[in-house]
Amino acid sequence: MKDRIYIQEVGVRDGFQSEPVFIPTETKVALIDKLSETGLAKIEVTAFVSPKAVPAMRDAADVMMRIKRVPHVIYTALVPNARGAEAAIAGKADEINIFMSASESHNLANVNKSTDASFVAFKEVMAVVEGTSVSVNGTVSTSFGCPFEGDVDPERVIGFISRYLDLGVAGVTLADTTGMANPAQVRALVDKVYRQFPSIDLTLHFHNTRGMGLANVIAGLDRGCRRYDGSLGGLGGCPFAPGATGNICTEDLVHMLWSMSYDTGVDLDSLIAASRELPDIVGHDVPGQVRKAGKYTALHSFADAKRATGK
Amino acid sequence: MKDRIYIQEVGVRDGFQSEPVFIPTETKVALIDKLSETGLAKIEVTAFVSPKAVPAMRDAADVMMRIKRVPHVIYTALVPNARGAEAAIAGKADEINIFMSASESHNLANVNKSTDASFVAFKEVMAVVEGTSVSVNGTVSTSFGCPFEGDVDPERVIGFISRYLDLGVAGVTLADTTGMANPAQVRALVDKVYRQFPSIDLTLHFHNTRGMGLANVIAGLDRGCRRYDGSLGGLGGCPFAPGATGNICTEDLVHMLWSMSYDTGVDLDSLIAASRELPDIVGHDVPGQVRKAGKYTALHSFADAKRATGK
Repeated sequence: MKDRIYIQEVGVRDGFQSEPVFIPTETKVALIDKLSETGLAKIEVTAFVSPKAVPAMRDAADVMMRIKRVPHVIYTALVPNARGAEAAIAGKADEINIFMSASESHNLANVNKSTDASFVAFKEVMAVVEGTSVSVNGTVSTSFGCPFEGDVDPERVIGFISRYLDLGVAGVTLADTTGMANPAQVRALVDKVYRQFPSIDLTLHFHNTRGMGLANVIAGLDRGCRRYDGSLGGLGGCPFAPGATGNICTEDLVHMLWSMSYDTGVDLDSLIAASRELPDIVGHDVPGQVRKAGKYTALHSFADAKRATGK
Repeated sequence: MKDRIYIQEVGVRDGFQSEPVFIPTETKVALIDKLSETGLAKIEVTAFVSPKAVPAMRDAADVMMRIKRVPHVIYTALVPNARGAEAAIAGKADEINIFMSASESHNLANVNKSTDASFVAFKEVMAVVEGTSVSVNGTVSTSFGCPFEGDVDPERVIGFISRYLDLGVAGVTLADTTGMANPAQVRALVDKVYRQFPSIDLTLHFHNTRGMGLANVIAGLDRGCRRYDGSLGGLGGCPFAPGATGNICTEDLVHMLWSMSYDTGVDLDSLIAASRELPDIVGHDVPGQVRKAGKYTALHSFADAKRATGK
């Protein structure tokens, strides 16, 4: 066994948020409870955001209240401001995840604020959290490119990481929000980050929009990053690309790491079983491959071959 | 610009062969002619095999005759035996691609022969080719795992490469026929191959059955391999996994290499344009992502974002 790699599930938040139909609270809770038993390191349960802006997450408090907490799983909630942080703490989140975008235009489009204004809000969040046992993770969205501006200067990303760390966050996530990252870029940026902040607790969050999601994970692993977000079944999507896949698929990620002898702590079979329920939950097929193809160790017979090829 | 990477298209053979419906000869020829103009290094045009066993390729001679030859593109044909080799030479193939499987059971299922019997046939192929300008490539299928037997001993793969080189082939392809390879395995096997055969002209042929296709390319690039097969649109499939993707998608591969500043010689826009015709040709959606999402440099406007999110 090689290094321990930490797998963080974002599908019930990032994925369900992209669905056009509201997923019933009891369905969310049942799925999260199932995921809690698989050995995932962290689950992003929900987002405490405006129910008018994001109706998919309007049951945030209810979901947080009803899920079964399993020891060693970190239950995190996405939060844009102090009000959200208060709600997340009331909901007994272990961690809150604050977020801004490395490009001004994306931050404006996403949270209707300048990046400076985002950090003013984050200061208020840290004040709310102070004295509690809740930890804070800071996400830099569009770290690898912005769908409006194109290239993002790595120095800007470094600057925002620095501002997050100055605030006192426990971890930082670099997110490839619309799937623009490539493996060479991931290597270069992750190298730069570790050079600048050698003890940073870094998460990489990739999308598979252009098919490079797991290739980018390989690049991150090469450079020593040990935390990855994934979305069950590859749920989620790119708002600009109908039909394109969203987040990297958690079970495909875990399958790859397992086949490479990394220790993820995740029971792949339970994860695949949970993913098999997704098409019924969301009412459509989801992009994950391992759910369809089976693990690489799933063998076939000559009879299968003859049936499959029609010979 | 980094190294030159050679992109070899197999979709019109490997992809079309998996389609349940016969693709008309003129459609094949038109697509191949379009692909010839994109800068691909090699196109596997067809297979000279039994038309009863593989009816999709029954127009092999006709296709070879009618395509327009573009200088610097190598037109190759898959061939199982001396009779196929004679037909390929008559069809003016630049190269013939012979194939066998690293596992006995897969070779038996695929060509109804032992691997030893395959090499007897290959000796006859080499006799047919001798004195012509046609070169021979030898493919080792199931090099990274067999769907019937599971793990394949790397020493067996080395042994078959050695037998191919002894026969006098110009190049060798290691094929992950049913998408079982992982990046750690690719690194280890490619390292082993180059240690044993430092001057080998090696192609890697990956499938994306379990989502690891481009991650495996990254592993191959790390270890110095510069030739990759791809299938336009990700055409092809795994006979055991309905719904799972087939070969790695050529335009997604070229897009990744281009974004990493490799020189592929391929015009990505022309390749994407060719891929956009595929759903009409085969009558269903195909798995490639870049065709749907656009290149990573394709920017969007605020208005796009508002339209897309319904805000």
